[in-house]
Amino acid sequence: MRISDVAIRAGVSPGTASKALNGTGQLRAETRDRVHRAAAELGFRPHGLARALSLGRSFTVGLLTTDSFGRFSLPVMLGVEDAMGAGEMAVLLCDTRDDPLRERHYLRTLVARQVDGLILTGRRTEPRVPVEVPNSLPVVYVFRPCADPAATSIVVDDAGGARLAAEHVLGLGRRRVAVITGPPSHLAARTRADAVVATLSGQGLAPAGPVQFGEWSERWGRLAATSLIRRGEEVDAILCGSDQIARGACDGLREADLRVPDDVAVVGFDNWDVMALACRPPLTTVDLELQQLGRQAAALLLDAIAGEVRPGRHQIAPRLVIRESSVGA
Amino acid sequence: MRISDVAIRAGVSPGTASKALNGTGQLRAETRDRVHRAAAELGFRPHGLARALSLGRSFTVGLLTTDSFGRFSLPVMLGVEDAMGAGEMAVLLCDTRDDPLRERHYLRTLVARQVDGLILTGRRTEPRVPVEVPNSLPVVYVFRPCADPAATSIVVDDAGGARLAAEHVLGLGRRRVAVITGPPSHLAARTRADAVVATLSGQGLAPAGPVQFGEWSERWGRLAATSLIRRGEEVDAILCGSDQIARGACDGLREADLRVPDDVAVVGFDNWDVMALACRPPLTTVDLELQQLGRQAAALLLDAIAGEVRPGRHQIAPRLVIRESSVGA
Repeated sequence: MRISDVAIRAGVSPGTASKALNGTGQLRAETRDRVHRAAAELGFRPHGLARALSLGRSFTVGLLTTDSFGRFSLPVMLGVEDAMGAGEMAVLLCDTRDDPLRERHYLRTLVARQVDGLILTGRRTEPRVPVEVPNSLPVVYVFRPCADPAATSIVVDDAGGARLAAEHVLGLGRRRVAVITGPPSHLAARTRADAVVATLSGQGLAPAGPVQFGEWSERWGRLAATSLIRRGEEVDAILCGSDQIARGACDGLREADLRVPDDVAVVGFDNWDVMALACRPPLTTVDLELQQLGRQAAALLLDAIAGEVRPGRHQIAPRLVIRESSVGA
Repeated sequence: MRISDVAIRAGVSPGTASKALNGTGQLRAETRDRVHRAAAELGFRPHGLARALSLGRSFTVGLLTTDSFGRFSLPVMLGVEDAMGAGEMAVLLCDTRDDPLRERHYLRTLVARQVDGLILTGRRTEPRVPVEVPNSLPVVYVFRPCADPAATSIVVDDAGGARLAAEHVLGLGRRRVAVITGPPSHLAARTRADAVVATLSGQGLAPAGPVQFGEWSERWGRLAATSLIRRGEEVDAILCGSDQIARGACDGLREADLRVPDDVAVVGFDNWDVMALACRPPLTTVDLELQQLGRQAAALLLDAIAGEVRPGRHQIAPRLVIRESSVGA
């Protein structure tokens, strides 16, 4: 079975058949389709691997997460896949599940497969140690940055997102702003809370009570909001470290017969649609733009593969999504 | 740079270096590590592609979802990745986003890359048309089966899961069982509801009121449960088509001053941890065992690649997870 057989069946020249199968040159979509149909009917497979080898490239990148693909890595992954798939790059998926042995195994496998580059991601925002791969292999760290400042990392501007939330409630005239967030051991919880406190302080305000650190759960949001009210803290806004916490806070306020947002405005963080839209009322929240983050990570990697390495820590700006929990119906 | 350079640096024979880099033979972990470290230090990459080509295999499979990777396809994907990664197979990720053009593009790309097999998945359970790829390429359909009975598909036993839920509440002595589920246009909603009605009927019972079809949302669960109570329907159990619906139903019952499970037992479907655990009280629900489904799909594909095709529609059994919404604290 040769490419000339495909050309004959498709009624085109062998050169045209080759262009169509290799995705090169300028061809009409109809011609390209006819060649692919003929190739499929004949069971002809172009020598993708042989071609890649002769070019010294695999047209493949590895996408490796240090913890299970989940709510945060999923949209990042979709963005990477979207940006890569639009070209001719394929994405190999690896999940190390926080296991250093699995990580080593995958890195070896990816290097042996001659991937053109690597994207590393994870659920936490704490910087991670660089991966051990040959220096010539381009690597981009996304969401979870690399501790090495000379590496290429791209992350969400968590502090900027928290400032957006704080400025929003201040702009609505709220002055008694409480903060409920996740565990103090999590960098994301501390970064977001610190940025809120700094923004309030810029207006000569202190938070309503100390920042309440706890867990990333609805239950914690409900408990913390309820205890704020019970101890008589005067509060007209609650900025939460996640949408789950914010949803719990809304439930706690409602059960204490307070109205959201009339009595207390509530703002979440993440724009996790399932939580933000099911919340009563629907949540104003900070969208992390994770899919965009994945697309930009892919663009940085493609640049690096093309020889244009852009070292340093890049940030993308989150976006405030305004719904009823801060401004009413 | 040759493999003998790596062998010298690692202080092993070239044969041992080759075994370590190819992952063949019996070597001590320490020896294998030393060779890989030496290879990394020298920037040596074994010719993974050349080796694969000479074997006529790419040791790569494509994982293609017909709709965006999401809540259902994610655990399936993790299971596939886990089972494949344990061997030497890598998983190429493709998301067609319900776009036939994207699907054609990806199928071509995967065939050109000489993948050893394909796994197709999707969010809906309605059978799909077979993909057009060469007959020699093994394909497994997972979660969303193929309409062709000669294809290899593996799906969740939705009816079996609904029977487990119904038998559970009947076993608790409940006799006035209502059903609230998703859109009637969704096969999963109809299959689950039909199985509940059949199980009740097997005990000489009819459902409490007609099956309520609506949407897959908390809001719908809340509305439907509230309207059941308002119209005075006597009900001591509600079987829901999803955890979101069940969580909404629990909220609706609580707001109507009914106790779950003392007055009404509630059972969900999916065991989506975020919903099931945040529900008040935590939900009894049907676990779809999606990660296991992904692992078994990978096993079916590996068998097919090895020449052992197992055509037909395979099913895995869901599992009832019992929590407070049916049996109390």
